[in-house]
Amino acid sequence: MAQNEDNLLKKIASHAKEYGFIFPSSEIYDGLGAAYDYGQNGVELKNSIKQYWWKAMVQMHENIVGIDASIFMHPTTWKASGHVDAFNDPMIDNKDSKKRYRADVLIEEYIAKVEAKIQKEVTKAEKRFGDAFDKEQFLATNPNVLRNQSKIDSINERLGNGLENGDLADIKALIEELGIADPVSGSKNWTDVRQFNLMFSTEMGSVAEDANKIYLRPETAQGIFVNFLNVQKTGRMKIPFGIAQIGKAFRNEIIARQFIFRMREFEQMEMQYFVKPGEEIEWYQTWKAKRIAWHKSLGLGEDNYRFHDHLNLAHYANAAADIQFNFPMGFKELEGIHSRTDFDLKAHEEHSGKKLQFFDTVENKAYVPYVVETSLGLDRMFLAVLSSAYTEETLEDGSERTVLKLPAPLAPYHVAVLPLLKKVESGLPAKAREILTELQFDFNCQYDEKDAIGKRYRRQDAIGTPYCITVDHQTLEDNTVTIRDRDDLSQIRVSIDEVKGKLKETTSMESLLRKL
Amino acid sequence: MAQNEDNLLKKIASHAKEYGFIFPSSEIYDGLGAAYDYGQNGVELKNSIKQYWWKAMVQMHENIVGIDASIFMHPTTWKASGHVDAFNDPMIDNKDSKKRYRADVLIEEYIAKVEAKIQKEVTKAEKRFGDAFDKEQFLATNPNVLRNQSKIDSINERLGNGLENGDLADIKALIEELGIADPVSGSKNWTDVRQFNLMFSTEMGSVAEDANKIYLRPETAQGIFVNFLNVQKTGRMKIPFGIAQIGKAFRNEIIARQFIFRMREFEQMEMQYFVKPGEEIEWYQTWKAKRIAWHKSLGLGEDNYRFHDHLNLAHYANAAADIQFNFPMGFKELEGIHSRTDFDLKAHEEHSGKKLQFFDTVENKAYVPYVVETSLGLDRMFLAVLSSAYTEETLEDGSERTVLKLPAPLAPYHVAVLPLLKKVESGLPAKAREILTELQFDFNCQYDEKDAIGKRYRRQDAIGTPYCITVDHQTLEDNTVTIRDRDDLSQIRVSIDEVKGKLKETTSMESLLRKL
Repeated sequence: MAQNEDNLLKKIASHAKEYGFIFPSSEIYDGLGAAYDYGQNGVELKNSIKQYWWKAMVQMHENIVGIDASIFMHPTTWKASGHVDAFNDPMIDNKDSKKRYRADVLIEEYIAKVEAKIQKEVTKAEKRFGDAFDKEQFLATNPNVLRNQSKIDSINERLGNGLENGDLADIKALIEELGIADPVSGSKNWTDVRQFNLMFSTEMGSVAEDANKIYLRPETAQGIFVNFLNVQKTGRMKIPFGIAQIGKAFRNEIIARQFIFRMREFEQMEMQYFVKPGEEIEWYQTWKAKRIAWHKSLGLGEDNYRFHDHLNLAHYANAAADIQFNFPMGFKELEGIHSRTDFDLKAHEEHSGKKLQFFDTVENKAYVPYVVETSLGLDRMFLAVLSSAYTEETLEDGSERTVLKLPAPLAPYHVAVLPLLKKVESGLPAKAREILTELQFDFNCQYDEKDAIGKRYRRQDAIGTPYCITVDHQTLEDNTVTIRDRDDLSQIRVSIDEVKGKLKETTSMESLLRKL
Repeated sequence: MAQNEDNLLKKIASHAKEYGFIFPSSEIYDGLGAAYDYGQNGVELKNSIKQYWWKAMVQMHENIVGIDASIFMHPTTWKASGHVDAFNDPMIDNKDSKKRYRADVLIEEYIAKVEAKIQKEVTKAEKRFGDAFDKEQFLATNPNVLRNQSKIDSINERLGNGLENGDLADIKALIEELGIADPVSGSKNWTDVRQFNLMFSTEMGSVAEDANKIYLRPETAQGIFVNFLNVQKTGRMKIPFGIAQIGKAFRNEIIARQFIFRMREFEQMEMQYFVKPGEEIEWYQTWKAKRIAWHKSLGLGEDNYRFHDHLNLAHYANAAADIQFNFPMGFKELEGIHSRTDFDLKAHEEHSGKKLQFFDTVENKAYVPYVVETSLGLDRMFLAVLSSAYTEETLEDGSERTVLKLPAPLAPYHVAVLPLLKKVESGLPAKAREILTELQFDFNCQYDEKDAIGKRYRRQDAIGTPYCITVDHQTLEDNTVTIRDRDDLSQIRVSIDEVKGKLKETTSMESLLRKL
């Protein structure tokens, strides 16, 4: 149910703050809307996700290379890509309350109310008919339901047409016909609907007359397209080949919400794969398969993924699908795989006057390649990992624990080294630090000597550390330690010499890559 | 000499473009002022620099953790830090040419001309006196030199005072008294000097009346300060401890130049170390020593570094030094180490109304910690590595090569796998790919089968690949390959089983970390 989902997301956000994963940005100044900072544990998890993606997508592929383009780009880039003219949300102002709203959201909220009416009828009938209730039949025959459903359909169609054709006057008319009121003031006194561009702009240069209006990039993809020829030529790449990039992008979203799911500043991990025209659908299928395999290698749960194929394609695409993930608030887009045709390269050819073509030596002709894109939101990926890992458990002894069952190679710390006693004279802290120093080259390690061992285990559980190494008196005698497993709580005693090998089996990136 | 230095920088920039390290940003649109993109080889080198810094600064230190704060911060942050009021450059416009200049740069260029006059006298005297010439004595006694030197000193003093006290009228007066003319038009018709803020601003939010003017952060440090308490508490950190961060920062520099040395969008690697008041100078010395050791571990040349201690301290510092590097254009700032006192935390206390203190359980009292900062420019570090690696050589056989003698762990590719023959029937490409597939888990690898082996070696030299593994007919017989060393050109034949171990000795991050 919606309420539970909301509660779970809140719990996760609260755990993320309490354990140094994610803080509200500028919190001492009461935060900044929909901006978050990654804390000491969050940054390690985030970096590990990046590394796994980069290693799997770039370094393990002979024909994929990376770039790191700047956030500032020449403004014509965004003219060519269509963002200056068409990257808009339709806004409407209420003349009395002076509040501004997204016109389509107002209408969608109206639709949600009608849907709630249908649901109410269903619930009522369910109660009345009990086991004999046939929902499908009810929906197909009940006159109230049918009337409301037909109303929804016609609103949806009109809204869709209005947005697609830019018929803002009709969207306003629709709001007025439906009698939609300002949710704050109740007033129905609306302005016209206007387009509001989602790009952040700023001015570069100091000389007033020379100052350029530039944009913060709303997507990383264009940084790849404008560098297509530079990379192809200097890297001697042959089609098919890919260019990958990880970087920040910025969108002035009207409604940014759901924790780190939709932020105004976010990070993308994108790969553009350049292929021969006509072969794009085959590659599109290949990349759908490769990307879902990458996700599933992490073990977040096979059932937590589904494909959502786009029926209404964007103007630049001839095939597109989302990989949706089962977030606390339900299945939502995690990654997009898009067959973008030659739209972008052709648009840049046109606006720059430069040829952006590949000369195919086999066919002895030049062409503008087609592009298949895989575009993953890094922050969403972080939320997917965190929320699927979050577990509240009652243990055999009746005690409760909150544990993050993170994929071991991604955990902020791979291992915690814990001397059983804190007292220097016991010799245990010195021995523990000796082990720590050697492990630090290969693993991210934490040292903790404070409080009883059980309490320390709980702390490591809460940040998802897969292994705890305990150094006790026996260690001083026979050079063995215990390794405690986060998930099944088992403890094994091994020689110190074996520890590295043991930990590498499950915490190395290699252990993930071998699954692909 | 200046001309050669300039040529060397141009050569490096041209090599960086030709071999996929750095491209001018948005080049198909004729570029964007002082913005650059990292290409397929550049991004790998850049990422490796980041990783080495992060591993050495964060993961190898028990009491240093990282964060990743957003670029957008609450605007009051920049009020507290002083950037809104005091992060300015003094600008002056020429009324005739309509060109704008940095007033201090105009004066510094004037000083440079006077310095050139002194240098000319020295050169003249050197020629006249030959071996008998005593430069020190000449500088101390020659009347022309003395007059010019005293002129320089007095200009410097007046400029320093004017900038420090914000006496812009006197800076204008100085420009007029010195008779400085617009370098373009020759006109001396100047406006008043005005302050120009270097922060980029943008508007967040869509509702016109609610829209907030926010800034792109001009430094990453403040993201650490505003998170001080969150990290300290959730990470259970005890003083002394550090918080580190790698991220983008933005400054609307009037004069951005010298390739990637000064860009408007750049990346910082900063660590703020929180210490007990009174102990900051000791820690400042410690961090100076630790940071220079980190740099020297890379082997870019011991003589390429020097400390420059600041005599005129910024308002927030009680000690400060730069680590300067011998760039193609001379010794310039690479990293800053600053004892920032409690200036920043106190300012945020004042502006936020929140206490930003540490409770010292030993002394049983709370205090605002002092801060020692290490601040390294990632792009400058990249330029230091690239420019010190760039080498043109004549080999024993008389042939010439351009080779990047990069530190092996930082090279874009650690190893290239090259089958001697390209023909499938030779069995060599298949064998080479088999080796490649296994090495990819641990190393960044390139495969190349095109052209004669000597030509392929040259290509790897040009991008700095430390090792080439050649797969030949003998490989098929006895499972051995040759490993060719980039720097001394030696070739050894080893069993395939030994390759991993051999390569790890010099290309792993661990090999660098063990030097610290």
